[in-house]
Amino acid sequence: MRLITADDMEEIALGAAVLGTGGGGDPYIGKLLAIEALRRHGPVQLLDIDALDDDDLIVPAAMMGAPTVMIEKIPQGDEIIRAFREMESYLGRSITATMSIEAGGLNSTTPFSVAAALGLPLIDADGMGRAFPEIQMVTMSIDDISATPFTLADDKGNTLLINTVDNLWTERFARTAVIEMGCSAMLACFPMTGRQLKQAAVPGTISLCQRIGRAIRQAHNDGQSPIEAVLEVTGGYRLFGGKIGDIQRRTVRGFTRGQAVIAGSGRWTNQQCTLQFQNEFLVAQTERAVLASVPDLITILDAETGEPITTESLRYGFRVEVLGIPCNERWRTPKGLSLVGPQYFGYDFPYVPLEERVQQREQ
Amino acid sequence: MRLITADDMEEIALGAAVLGTGGGGDPYIGKLLAIEALRRHGPVQLLDIDALDDDDLIVPAAMMGAPTVMIEKIPQGDEIIRAFREMESYLGRSITATMSIEAGGLNSTTPFSVAAALGLPLIDADGMGRAFPEIQMVTMSIDDISATPFTLADDKGNTLLINTVDNLWTERFARTAVIEMGCSAMLACFPMTGRQLKQAAVPGTISLCQRIGRAIRQAHNDGQSPIEAVLEVTGGYRLFGGKIGDIQRRTVRGFTRGQAVIAGSGRWTNQQCTLQFQNEFLVAQTERAVLASVPDLITILDAETGEPITTESLRYGFRVEVLGIPCNERWRTPKGLSLVGPQYFGYDFPYVPLEERVQQREQ
Repeated sequence: MRLITADDMEEIALGAAVLGTGGGGDPYIGKLLAIEALRRHGPVQLLDIDALDDDDLIVPAAMMGAPTVMIEKIPQGDEIIRAFREMESYLGRSITATMSIEAGGLNSTTPFSVAAALGLPLIDADGMGRAFPEIQMVTMSIDDISATPFTLADDKGNTLLINTVDNLWTERFARTAVIEMGCSAMLACFPMTGRQLKQAAVPGTISLCQRIGRAIRQAHNDGQSPIEAVLEVTGGYRLFGGKIGDIQRRTVRGFTRGQAVIAGSGRWTNQQCTLQFQNEFLVAQTERAVLASVPDLITILDAETGEPITTESLRYGFRVEVLGIPCNERWRTPKGLSLVGPQYFGYDFPYVPLEERVQQREQ
Repeated sequence: MRLITADDMEEIALGAAVLGTGGGGDPYIGKLLAIEALRRHGPVQLLDIDALDDDDLIVPAAMMGAPTVMIEKIPQGDEIIRAFREMESYLGRSITATMSIEAGGLNSTTPFSVAAALGLPLIDADGMGRAFPEIQMVTMSIDDISATPFTLADDKGNTLLINTVDNLWTERFARTAVIEMGCSAMLACFPMTGRQLKQAAVPGTISLCQRIGRAIRQAHNDGQSPIEAVLEVTGGYRLFGGKIGDIQRRTVRGFTRGQAVIAGSGRWTNQQCTLQFQNEFLVAQTERAVLASVPDLITILDAETGEPITTESLRYGFRVEVLGIPCNERWRTPKGLSLVGPQYFGYDFPYVPLEERVQQREQ
């Protein structure tokens, strides 16, 4: 166990945005909200997954919506508290701890707000090891853990409690409700016992976020390359570099969808890389080959500062580096790929692990 | 108090479809479901509104969706039970009685199914004295009684519990959820104390339904006009008669919307009447004048049999009579008209009580 203070949030939010693969919410807003909560309520205990008792009750906290909207519609602060109260009242017992459901600028930091306000410890883990756009896309689904009861709260004072026969139905009901809520809402989901969580979660995600964030800042201070620092901490690969050209982005059915084209420079001169996204980056490809695809992580960093660039902050003319980071091994199982593989997202090519794609390209 | 048996349901469903003003669900399906429940579980107690204790807990039961879909997607039977269980578990107390939220072929009879299955008495009242398409359109809204907690259950096993800041928000969330549920779902709503109900509800609706249904059957047996019989029991007016011509009908955002044109016959020869509907008939008008509008009841009866015709059973060539029936007085207050007056439905003319319109036309 260690205490997380407001001072830690800069590094955590920065590293989380790297694992957020373009989604998971705006890191700046997420950081500010968490820092404010930590300053007001005091530090939050970060617990290792092993510190949980088997019958503890853990409820992840998150924000749901289209990043294009979330960036302009900042939570009031009490939405997540109302979502948690509704969950506790429905389950008839107290929540032991909270955690992130995904890594991402906002969704790694959001749970700190509720942990601080409710005096709950926060588990050093998440349900993806990255960010994904849909609710059922968590390692808990691989273990058939239900997303429900699932509570949603909006900024107006409305709450919803959902109970569904599977996690795809949770996604459907929650998504349409979030659209009615103005395309962003706070939620409590996947209530789990300590025993379930130990088996189902991706451990150590918050610590990893902080290590990544710290490496970027350190490299900066030392005049080193922040890109190299991220690659070292994450075991990732440099896939492409260049300048952002055309961007198509639209908010569809509660998601931010679109694509961006990068004109290569340096060793990628005369090549072109297309990034496709649904809240998160899904596929990076050149005219010749797929460079990386879900469930592996595709992260876009500012070529100079190493700052992660989200799908809603992509701008024409930005000089960027495209990084690939291997995903958690559980996503590479047949059940994992059926949930988040390229074919689930409508692509007709099979999943090939990032490391193999890199190797093939280097031959 | 009196007992309602399967034998009463024919008359109740028939009369309810008259008050259903074209909506409120298919009377045939509603009747069959209620009869089956009453045969299996035994008769249901029909309680006068005055028999309630002030602290009784009454929860209306209903079906929600587009009539065009409901006619083909028959409830499994346990949806409404699950909606009630979810409501009781959330409120942490037992429900004393149930009732209809609206008069209508299905929504007058649906509560008998749940009353029979759960052994609850049914209150002789409803929240409209007719049918309306949206959740907030009940006399309880005039008294600022909340529609929530509000539970929805579908045929697949999914349930939703909604808590909103006002009843318009309940309508929004429930409607989008019902669309995801396949355009029809069962629900429990407007949990009320006996004290609230006595002030807010329209009393005697089930008895009135039965009187209307009985009058139609009696007239039939006696070789009398069923139309005259309905007019006598309801205090209504004959507004138009003729043959149905063009019908436009589409399922939009979970509603059945459209219009039908009637070519006049008899004393209306060479005139034409247009009926506009959103689940229920909203406006009846000729080229010259509005004949009747919400909140007054517009009911279409088969000219020969006196059977009510719902918006989804309108067919080219049917010979029909258009009846107008004065609505409950509470709908004619400023607050009532703001909820269900013609202007709420997008029409630019002011509400004129049916009786005045009839008088003006006769001059």
